[in-house]
Amino acid sequence: MTEKIERLRERLARVADISHASAVLGWDQQTYMPPGGAQDRAMQLATLNSLAHEIFVSDEMGEAIEQAASEGTDLDADSDDARLIKKSKREYEKQTKIPTEWVAEFSKASGLAHPEWEKAREKSEFTQFQPHLEKLVALRREYVDFFAPYDHVYDPLLDDFEPGMKTTEVKDVFDTLRPKQVELIRAIIDEGAPVDDALVRQNYDLQKQWDFGIEVITALGYDFKRGRQDKSVHPFTTSFGIDDVRITTRFIPDFLNTAIFGSMHEAGHAMYEQGIKSELGRTPLADGASLAIHESQSRMWENLVGRSRPFWVAFFPRLQKHFPDLLDSVDMESFYKAINKVDRTFIRVDADEATYNLHIMLRFELEIALMEGTLAVKDLPEAWNTKFDDYFGITPPDDAKGVLQDIHWSFGGFGYFSTYALGNLVASQLWEKIVADIPDITGQIEQADFGELLQWLRGIIHQHGAKFEPIELLNRVTGKGLDPEPYIN
Amino acid sequence: MTEKIERLRERLARVADISHASAVLGWDQQTYMPPGGAQDRAMQLATLNSLAHEIFVSDEMGEAIEQAASEGTDLDADSDDARLIKKSKREYEKQTKIPTEWVAEFSKASGLAHPEWEKAREKSEFTQFQPHLEKLVALRREYVDFFAPYDHVYDPLLDDFEPGMKTTEVKDVFDTLRPKQVELIRAIIDEGAPVDDALVRQNYDLQKQWDFGIEVITALGYDFKRGRQDKSVHPFTTSFGIDDVRITTRFIPDFLNTAIFGSMHEAGHAMYEQGIKSELGRTPLADGASLAIHESQSRMWENLVGRSRPFWVAFFPRLQKHFPDLLDSVDMESFYKAINKVDRTFIRVDADEATYNLHIMLRFELEIALMEGTLAVKDLPEAWNTKFDDYFGITPPDDAKGVLQDIHWSFGGFGYFSTYALGNLVASQLWEKIVADIPDITGQIEQADFGELLQWLRGIIHQHGAKFEPIELLNRVTGKGLDPEPYIN
Repeated sequence: MTEKIERLRERLARVADISHASAVLGWDQQTYMPPGGAQDRAMQLATLNSLAHEIFVSDEMGEAIEQAASEGTDLDADSDDARLIKKSKREYEKQTKIPTEWVAEFSKASGLAHPEWEKAREKSEFTQFQPHLEKLVALRREYVDFFAPYDHVYDPLLDDFEPGMKTTEVKDVFDTLRPKQVELIRAIIDEGAPVDDALVRQNYDLQKQWDFGIEVITALGYDFKRGRQDKSVHPFTTSFGIDDVRITTRFIPDFLNTAIFGSMHEAGHAMYEQGIKSELGRTPLADGASLAIHESQSRMWENLVGRSRPFWVAFFPRLQKHFPDLLDSVDMESFYKAINKVDRTFIRVDADEATYNLHIMLRFELEIALMEGTLAVKDLPEAWNTKFDDYFGITPPDDAKGVLQDIHWSFGGFGYFSTYALGNLVASQLWEKIVADIPDITGQIEQADFGELLQWLRGIIHQHGAKFEPIELLNRVTGKGLDPEPYIN
Repeated sequence: MTEKIERLRERLARVADISHASAVLGWDQQTYMPPGGAQDRAMQLATLNSLAHEIFVSDEMGEAIEQAASEGTDLDADSDDARLIKKSKREYEKQTKIPTEWVAEFSKASGLAHPEWEKAREKSEFTQFQPHLEKLVALRREYVDFFAPYDHVYDPLLDDFEPGMKTTEVKDVFDTLRPKQVELIRAIIDEGAPVDDALVRQNYDLQKQWDFGIEVITALGYDFKRGRQDKSVHPFTTSFGIDDVRITTRFIPDFLNTAIFGSMHEAGHAMYEQGIKSELGRTPLADGASLAIHESQSRMWENLVGRSRPFWVAFFPRLQKHFPDLLDSVDMESFYKAINKVDRTFIRVDADEATYNLHIMLRFELEIALMEGTLAVKDLPEAWNTKFDDYFGITPPDDAKGVLQDIHWSFGGFGYFSTYALGNLVASQLWEKIVADIPDITGQIEQADFGELLQWLRGIIHQHGAKFEPIELLNRVTGKGLDPEPYIN
């Protein structure tokens, strides 16, 4: 490594340290912080985030990137250093468009909005959250304008999560999917044999749910020496560096799916981050390639592994050991059907595979309307309910089960949701390749043996972190870009 | 408030935010961080601490202080703003003497030393910690030289915790105390009736210990809406702002004293920080006046309240409810004697009131020898054991119960210990005044009513934070400076 690249790495490491510190504060905010801490914590996050931004967009950083770039012209274009320079340059060009004042204001506003969202959700009272959401939407519209001109007002938001992707591309994919998805649900629910999921809706002891969840994600390969699981209102994964990647989960006594699939989902994210090679530590490459790639990992472990028959061949007997009273007289097939029951329900994170993408499309369309200015925040609950009725044929009984259910907007995160659906598509695309490369994958899962699968993912995806842009990475792995076909099949 | 003072406050708030963020990272490091996180965490703390230092010693800060000072000449000398300017100026003059590189290096070294200390302590293997301690001692000797000339090499270290206090003053106080302390212990242990403390050394269920501890500190007035308690290897209090002040404790199944008195001690610190008036938030005045004043609070609640008969009149029946099997047939007086048993023991934090100060003097003398260079780190275990035998007439069986027992050196904290003993003196001095001002204090404690006591402390000490220097504060409250007489009595 040349001296100039080393100097760039040092500067970037400083920014990474501050961002990771900020992540620790965010994790604490959602897990252990007492209510009194909210106000000061918002200020602390605003200070850290604006500091990280200030240092990243400084002239010194610009020069360090330029100098490293000029010295790096003879590097292999696929080398870590060449990619680091490329990524830093792209980020620098984006970030320098954003004033530090905006970062501080946004950070403060989202820090203050979050506890109000929690309260509003608890009381199912949208008006308590409304002024905060209005502020955040206004700030996000300001944000978008820093990147003008753009093809679509939603593009700059999407680009933060899916580098290079355009709103119109996502719209096209969703337009292809939507009618098939609606038809599928209709066929399953209205024409299929009715499924009884009373089995997974018994009173499951929370401590035993916790223990079983730990057993499952340990088996998958989540490394507890470099991570931990805690409880939070909304499950999430956060990274304080490659060797400290944490997850949270939540428990519902009378619905087993929530904690198990939630933990598997977050462990999927976390194993991605834990699998990044250490050479990329404390650089902007120590991250996922994009959120869709990230979601491809979480949703693969959650759905393609966790909701599969082979998985329950291995784990149903283990689950029975934790809950002999509730499950000893139950056969695996009934249980397998119950956890996979397809139904029109209100909550996205508890949704089954068949309905999930519709939850996403609804949010995607509402976010676009908010950003285009064709929908006012005050009208959002009604718009949500109307659209929900359109897509699902049912109306949420209250805002807690409707517009207030997700955490994302409370942090000002717009442009995020579509990545979940895209992640589903990518997961299916990868799975086609996995089945080809690991012919015995079913047998291995039946043995609770996930070693080869994890190694495969580590080798072609995890280790590279954010070295490659998402579509490029997909091309390297599957030979083509984003393709909805495997998912539809 | 004038514009220039407002500008100074804004700058100081930024530094406070970073320091509080650093405190969150430190708290996490000792409570929940998985082992893998140690390396990156050390770097993150180094980055945050050097950033806070850089911003604090910047020319812009110096100018902001100067300008606020020039505008503040007509302020009441006891006003918050006048004191803020004075304190900032004093700190600025000190901090600008310390190079930022030293701060980063020290922070990194202490971050790396801490987990090695934990391991060394667990294995009772001093050599594992030795190179780290050597590094930290070397760094502290460099540190001291930034403040040359000084009367004594230990003075600059002491000044960080006790603004304005000199090593020779502490030596004098200790020289007065030591013979009386040794004589007292001899009299109690060798001539007093033998006390059996088997009562507090039964197998006390940890969860019930936890519950009782929470009951006690809630009654004292520790505010859980603005704080929380967690477990750690070494108990501590940490503040992320006036409205988020946390404590930790630890439990030993077969020694009840550890958790109860540990929790009361830390709650004493925390109630001090929670009691600082909100106007001082995010400034250098949102802190204790000094560590001795801080320890006067923690040790007052722990010893003068917690080990007193009136306290157990109120709480022994409550304790019995948690442990009916162990305590129902025990009378209060026997229990009261057992928890107050004076004995020659190895561990400072478990020590009784009579022997505690001797533990401190031993450390104070060893620290001075290390700093003077008359004792090498490699000879520290032997020096510890020899001195321990001198003072207590017993020799630690291993280093875990000897030189490795305290956390302070693992963080490079030298100059800290003496404040515990000074805190004992201050606590007794304050208690004299409390008994005069609240004649019914005994009756109130017997009713588990600590409201008036806490209000008294809030009014004359807590609310002021670090507005007054410690000796000045003592003078304001008691009419004289540090006085060992009330303690000796």
